[in-house]
Amino acid sequence: MTVYFEDLDEGDVLEFGTYDVTEDEIVEFAERYDPQWFHTQPERAREESHFDDLAASGWHTCAIAMRLVVDGHYVDAAGLGALGIEQLRWPNPTVPGDSLSVTVEILEMRRSESDPTRGLVTLNHTVTNQASEVKLEMRPTVMYACRNSG
Amino acid sequence: MTVYFEDLDEGDVLEFGTYDVTEDEIVEFAERYDPQWFHTQPERAREESHFDDLAASGWHTCAIAMRLVVDGHYVDAAGLGALGIEQLRWPNPTVPGDSLSVTVEILEMRRSESDPTRGLVTLNHTVTNQASEVKLEMRPTVMYACRNSG
Repeated sequence: MTVYFEDLDEGDVLEFGTYDVTEDEIVEFAERYDPQWFHTQPERAREESHFDDLAASGWHTCAIAMRLVVDGHYVDAAGLGALGIEQLRWPNPTVPGDSLSVTVEILEMRRSESDPTRGLVTLNHTVTNQASEVKLEMRPTVMYACRNSG
Repeated sequence: MTVYFEDLDEGDVLEFGTYDVTEDEIVEFAERYDPQWFHTQPERAREESHFDDLAASGWHTCAIAMRLVVDGHYVDAAGLGALGIEQLRWPNPTVPGDSLSVTVEILEMRRSESDPTRGLVTLNHTVTNQASEVKLEMRPTVMYACRNSG
């Protein structure tokens, strides 16, 4: 059953996970999109980086979080894409061995003024690992289709 | 020659590009990290999506922009990773055939108070295609190593 704008409520909390992150995947993503040495060279990163380990590209952490939320929510929801993000923070890097999950809280909902068949939902996403270390926190605003217009 | 914190100035504008985006790459990224139908099904996206075309995952646009900036700047700069992003916007989707480039403006620079060997730089990134359509705009804050401490 498809989840429309009307099926969401401010204050709802949704949990999605988990995704196991490997060294190979960190290096593969970074070699393609973010080839900085602390993302692509495991040995050097462990010895020389201020992260003390191979760190995933921050965009990789975002992509993994997206996959968890799509599999757990958007696969059955009338999401129409995000307009943008406020306050994105990477307080700790994702490292090999992390098992990531995402907590989504619905902060604010409003009908679109220009198009009553759509609603705008502002969410807080928190990505943590198995030790509850926060890897990513951000506030996307996502467009949803409404079941009923107006 | 490595670009350190001291080599940057507020107001500097840097340009990087271009990156040609194909339908195959949009689908490949989305199938792995953002498998929503308007990112993975070209025909259906062109017929049914409000984007009127296959739209790249917003995270894919971020990743491509990162690649351009790494190749043009961080490959020779003492960047130590980003702390976070303010005001990330995707005003238009990236679509097949887009040729993306990035304009980076240095908005604000300050020495770290806790560690004088590092500086924090707030940048504005604007990603546009060959028709000057804006695909992504965001303000990351990036840590750089300083050449001289204090």
